[in-house]
Amino acid sequence: MATPVDVDFARELDARDPLARFRDELIVDSDVLYLDGNSLGRLPRRTVERMREAVEVEWGGRLIRAWSEGWFDAPRRVGAKIAALIGAADDEVIVADSTSVNLFKLVLSALKARPGRSTVVTDDLNFPSDIYVLRGALDLAGEHRLEIVRSPDGIGVPVEALADAIDGRTALVTLSHTTFKSGYVHDLPSITALAHRAGALVLWDLSHSLGAMPISLDEARVDLAVGCTYKYANGGPGAPAFVYIRRDLQDALVNPIPGWFGQRAPFDFGLEYEARRGIGHFLTGTPPVLSLAAIEPGVDLLLEAGVARLREKSVRQTEYLIALWEALLQPLGFTLNSPRDTDRRGSHVSFGHPDGWRIDQALIAEMGVLPDFRHPDNIRFGVAPLYTSFADIREATMRLARVVTERRYEKYPRARTEVT
Amino acid sequence: MATPVDVDFARELDARDPLARFRDELIVDSDVLYLDGNSLGRLPRRTVERMREAVEVEWGGRLIRAWSEGWFDAPRRVGAKIAALIGAADDEVIVADSTSVNLFKLVLSALKARPGRSTVVTDDLNFPSDIYVLRGALDLAGEHRLEIVRSPDGIGVPVEALADAIDGRTALVTLSHTTFKSGYVHDLPSITALAHRAGALVLWDLSHSLGAMPISLDEARVDLAVGCTYKYANGGPGAPAFVYIRRDLQDALVNPIPGWFGQRAPFDFGLEYEARRGIGHFLTGTPPVLSLAAIEPGVDLLLEAGVARLREKSVRQTEYLIALWEALLQPLGFTLNSPRDTDRRGSHVSFGHPDGWRIDQALIAEMGVLPDFRHPDNIRFGVAPLYTSFADIREATMRLARVVTERRYEKYPRARTEVT
Repeated sequence: MATPVDVDFARELDARDPLARFRDELIVDSDVLYLDGNSLGRLPRRTVERMREAVEVEWGGRLIRAWSEGWFDAPRRVGAKIAALIGAADDEVIVADSTSVNLFKLVLSALKARPGRSTVVTDDLNFPSDIYVLRGALDLAGEHRLEIVRSPDGIGVPVEALADAIDGRTALVTLSHTTFKSGYVHDLPSITALAHRAGALVLWDLSHSLGAMPISLDEARVDLAVGCTYKYANGGPGAPAFVYIRRDLQDALVNPIPGWFGQRAPFDFGLEYEARRGIGHFLTGTPPVLSLAAIEPGVDLLLEAGVARLREKSVRQTEYLIALWEALLQPLGFTLNSPRDTDRRGSHVSFGHPDGWRIDQALIAEMGVLPDFRHPDNIRFGVAPLYTSFADIREATMRLARVVTERRYEKYPRARTEVT
Repeated sequence: MATPVDVDFARELDARDPLARFRDELIVDSDVLYLDGNSLGRLPRRTVERMREAVEVEWGGRLIRAWSEGWFDAPRRVGAKIAALIGAADDEVIVADSTSVNLFKLVLSALKARPGRSTVVTDDLNFPSDIYVLRGALDLAGEHRLEIVRSPDGIGVPVEALADAIDGRTALVTLSHTTFKSGYVHDLPSITALAHRAGALVLWDLSHSLGAMPISLDEARVDLAVGCTYKYANGGPGAPAFVYIRRDLQDALVNPIPGWFGQRAPFDFGLEYEARRGIGHFLTGTPPVLSLAAIEPGVDLLLEAGVARLREKSVRQTEYLIALWEALLQPLGFTLNSPRDTDRRGSHVSFGHPDGWRIDQALIAEMGVLPDFRHPDNIRFGVAPLYTSFADIREATMRLARVVTERRYEKYPRARTEVT
């Protein structure tokens, strides 16, 4: 009988994969084994056609007329599709700005909605940029303090640790649902309920969850959420991010960056700002239409595949990856820096190694594998259930093992040079 | 001898136009006479190819590798090209976010740099969205007041009126260089000097100037500027905007929305924000790469044509347009709602008419002319010297006159319906 390391084992899993056909919906270049779809998702074939249309037909041919033929409506239209992926209603999600700018808007509006409360609670597994934004927002809001709950092991943060930090002073609890490094998944319903019992609002960053994790924002009574669209949603590099605001909060919150796209009657050009009703007033300036157009086909693919089926495959794939780690990587000194508990694990797995950075370089340069690297020593394998095959996972893991057994990493520098 | 209304007059001007060849660089569809290049510029032919490359080769083929092969550097690379159009140094301009978000960042950073000062001065010709953003920023900054200097005629604001409002309490003076409705052009060097004498900072919105007006930011010692790239720069719908910060201010100012693209070492993923040196720390989140990629070919075209030659042609064209107004439109009840003084006029001209909105609808629906309409009664003809021909201007004006002489506008509704 085949064991996980046998090629037949992977082939069998691929043969039984009900989502296998979706791989053909994306441009899957043969030059590389791509395990970084949780950083930048692959290009959907339909997006190639959609971009030609947006550039040549709409901009080139329709010019300014295209605004009323679909562009004005795009933040809401694409938002409504994303809503269906995260358990929200059509009118609770829009696409606007970057994740960071959206987070900034929501944090300031949340603090204003909770006067007299002085702390914001997050954890040290949150994406650092989110913490930078929080610090910036708190500097503006005045007398607030950021409480960063520490992870005991760098992998997860137990609900109890958060519970200790959340109290009657807490204005806002904000966390990454799936954390960027370890792939730890917070218990969204429990933490949301915890925050609400203390009278705080809650804001989830869903960047590493959208398209891979089932989420029921409305069911959990989540207040606010943001997330990017360029990871599992395959929306393209730096594609605009989304904003979720639960319906009953939409008119109560104030967008701290009011702009003409959130104005009730933008073409009256009045000097007084009057917010649109609903979530639309959280738009600010003119959206980057071409990048926005690129999002829709990728989101459509996720809707066709179905979040439940995507999650089911993702779980099978990360379990398989962990089985391969046990068989091939653990003996070579790799640690598993992601949760073993399936319920607490998202769709990427991090392996630590003292020579992680050198190994990562060799893996890319010599083995044709593209993982991601996360400081200080994590090699991160992202599984995109829409197109990652079990054979990809097996082959990438074998090659990672070979980098070590063949000592290919030794000629690479230990110190990381700046990318930007 | 030919008069301005004769077709030979326009043909002769086109024949002598040293920039005529640039028209072929853009997709000029024959279905419409386009006089709205100051709202959304046309599609450069090179951009079609550039977008295919960005989508199919870079995203599709290079995937995450493309970040270090050009994407990371794009905000600075495109910024340096824009700098050459506005009299700034290479390292004084970056591309980031929307004009509104950039304005927000700069306003808050300016207020922080001028503690103890309590007013921000602008005028009522400024783009309303800029005023909304100012109000939002001032709400956050605390004890500040917005002073909106009123235009006596709705066309311009004399320097003297601004001088009266600027004093020792002024933290910031911020204006649109070329105003969106009348096309009035402020005296940038004089107003900048005026603000500086009072100890205030100055922030110019160059959206309606970039690519049409010569600007010397460094020579005038301007502190701050923003502007969009989708008008005369032909950067595509909602293309990301630019930020200018004079070099000696860059490290002194604080970005109120700090994010990982402005972090000194983003891939160390430290929880403490440490700003990059130079203008780069005014980046926040991941930029929308596809929309950003679309900007560069349009900016290259402006650099090849040269700002001085563009301005020279633009002046000839708006003068021609005004001569046609005198001959054809004024007798039909159209007023000239733009400055007659060439030095105070940008590259668009507004014509007022009591039936303006109905005339605009007829002009678009029946005459194949695409102007812009600006509340309450302005029909705005934008001249994009890179591709607008004198024949276009003549023909569009003739058709505008025909809408009135043939009473074609009478069947259109008087009330404007909302576009968004």
